Amino acid sequence: MKTKIHACLIIWVGILVFSESVLANEPIEPIIPATEINPAQVELGKKLFFDPRLSKSGSISCNSCHNLSMGGTDNLKTSIGHNRQQGPINVPTVLNSSLNIFQFWDGRAADLKELAGDPVANPGEMALTHALAVSVLASIPEYVSEFSKAFDSGDIDIDQVTTAIAEFEKTLMTPNSRFDQWLAGSKQAISEQELAGYKLFKSSGCVACHNGKAVGGNSFQKMGVVEPYQTKNQAQGLVNLTGKESDRFRFKVPTLRNIELTYPYFHDGEAATLSEAVDIMGRLQLGKQFTVEEIAKIVAFLKTLTGDQPSFLLPVLPPSTDKTPQPKLFEN
Amino acid sequence: MKTKIHACLIIWVGILVFSESVLANEPIEPIIPATEINPAQVELGKKLFFDPRLSKSGSISCNSCHNLSMGGTDNLKTSIGHNRQQGPINVPTVLNSSLNIFQFWDGRAADLKELAGDPVANPGEMALTHALAVSVLASIPEYVSEFSKAFDSGDIDIDQVTTAIAEFEKTLMTPNSRFDQWLAGSKQAISEQELAGYKLFKSSGCVACHNGKAVGGNSFQKMGVVEPYQTKNQAQGLVNLTGKESDRFRFKVPTLRNIELTYPYFHDGEAATLSEAVDIMGRLQLGKQFTVEEIAKIVAFLKTLTGDQPSFLLPVLPPSTDKTPQPKLFEN
Repeated sequence: MKTKIHACLIIWVGILVFSESVLANEPIEPIIPATEINPAQVELGKKLFFDPRLSKSGSISCNSCHNLSMGGTDNLKTSIGHNRQQGPINVPTVLNSSLNIFQFWDGRAADLKELAGDPVANPGEMALTHALAVSVLASIPEYVSEFSKAFDSGDIDIDQVTTAIAEFEKTLMTPNSRFDQWLAGSKQAISEQELAGYKLFKSSGCVACHNGKAVGGNSFQKMGVVEPYQTKNQAQGLVNLTGKESDRFRFKVPTLRNIELTYPYFHDGEAATLSEAVDIMGRLQLGKQFTVEEIAKIVAFLKTLTGDQPSFLLPVLPPSTDKTPQPKLFEN
Repeated sequence: MKTKIHACLIIWVGILVFSESVLANEPIEPIIPATEINPAQVELGKKLFFDPRLSKSGSISCNSCHNLSMGGTDNLKTSIGHNRQQGPINVPTVLNSSLNIFQFWDGRAADLKELAGDPVANPGEMALTHALAVSVLASIPEYVSEFSKAFDSGDIDIDQVTTAIAEFEKTLMTPNSRFDQWLAGSKQAISEQELAGYKLFKSSGCVACHNGKAVGGNSFQKMGVVEPYQTKNQAQGLVNLTGKESDRFRFKVPTLRNIELTYPYFHDGEAATLSEAVDIMGRLQLGKQFTVEEIAKIVAFLKTLTGDQPSFLLPVLPPSTDKTPQPKLFEN
């Protein structure tokens, strides 16, 4: 009897090792929640992320475009900036964004901290200056006290502001998607249709660019490899940074995590639905015309990539004081 | 010994009864959290409150102007509506708004349910139609299922939408302010300066209009009783509804609950600070020129009216589907 149990155990462990080695061979890895974080900076950064006083008009916060109720995006083709300026590009999700090799579609920020300062001072986005952002925060005693707790050094500066926002953004991971449960060995977590979609996703070559933890976010690729991509959008991609003609129209491959939530798709937001996006990607990047059934399978798989969304209490912002610089709502 | 304790108890109970009777005579009553609510409707209404798909552009939610991170207001002079239209009036807080006799500055909605439908269809605010709002929600299976749980009747209709939003808004009470703690007998809850401010608030006549649970919200009064109020703002108040000339410039008295958070002040948002607001109110409504010290005392009292802000997890919105009508971002 004892020997039988022992034998069973060996077989079971064997299966486990085998199944783990299979999983280890999958080109997609599970999302892991952030662990090494500074809690005081996270709490402060959360408030800053929701605070529209970081914009000139007093009406745009990070969360306006990276709405954490909507997959960390605004679900618009392109965002709306200061004074209703139309943004030049579709907003990338802030979810799992710490996994990106670089930030922005053209990779112009090295990390989340560098990213965080950009929209605040961008005249087409929040349109404030860093100096004014710091003045606003320094006029609010509760912020002064929170900054002092989160950072040991003296006065508030923009470096502390972007550090805190980036620290909060690090926590915006979405683990536990049905696909990650499947990766962890729970074979019932996804349906046959979804598994067939995943197999097709791999065998068709999608996985060449969409791989790793974020299922993307780790390389730059040309939009329109086999066929050119037609768009009225003016964004040129990586060439902005490198000046190399070969980098024209090369964009950071977007993450496919939570892709069901982050419509519309592509850097110009012109693909309204996942089916449309899969169809276009197949033709333009891989030279494949997917059938309706194949598209349905891949879309079914993609919807298994929706993870647990960030869950936290809506932050309550400390009020301005008589000394706080006033927002300039209708000023250019 | 036993008798002594007994005597002490009698004195103590006597003081308690006396202090309660004093409290009963105060013209301000404590805020009480909502109890009789429908939890399924509240949860659904919370999502709707945060959902920008109830606007034509897909970018404005109830929470855009009634920001629950900022005292249920947007802290702007006047709000920004569809296509950056400047709102005609300063946004009233949604906090404790179930206590208002009528809704809006001119009282044109009888209750929260009637209120909730107005901004959605107002061309200057969210600029959607009720029919389109219902089509959007009906295209999203998770909403269909939630509506069906919250209401026993068939298809989603606008009545259900506004009922759910109003039910959520009923929960946005802010109990436990320091002033309410003082009302409940905790004499240390407010400072001497704050108490002096309260006494002055009563003796000067502010309390004639700002009384009850909401410290306002329960009557219409003329803006500029003793001296006319000078403003470029076009709002005319109650006359819009009654047609009576005597109602011109009569507005609903705003609540002073959480007034520290709901700057700027007055229907035109022209008073940036509480000191300015108290000074102007004294002169125009009461014919009193408060000294700087008196203003400081009243402002100190007013800041004791900030209660516990609504506390809940940021709602996660169900994604649109291929059938969901698309937002029209830059269309008039």
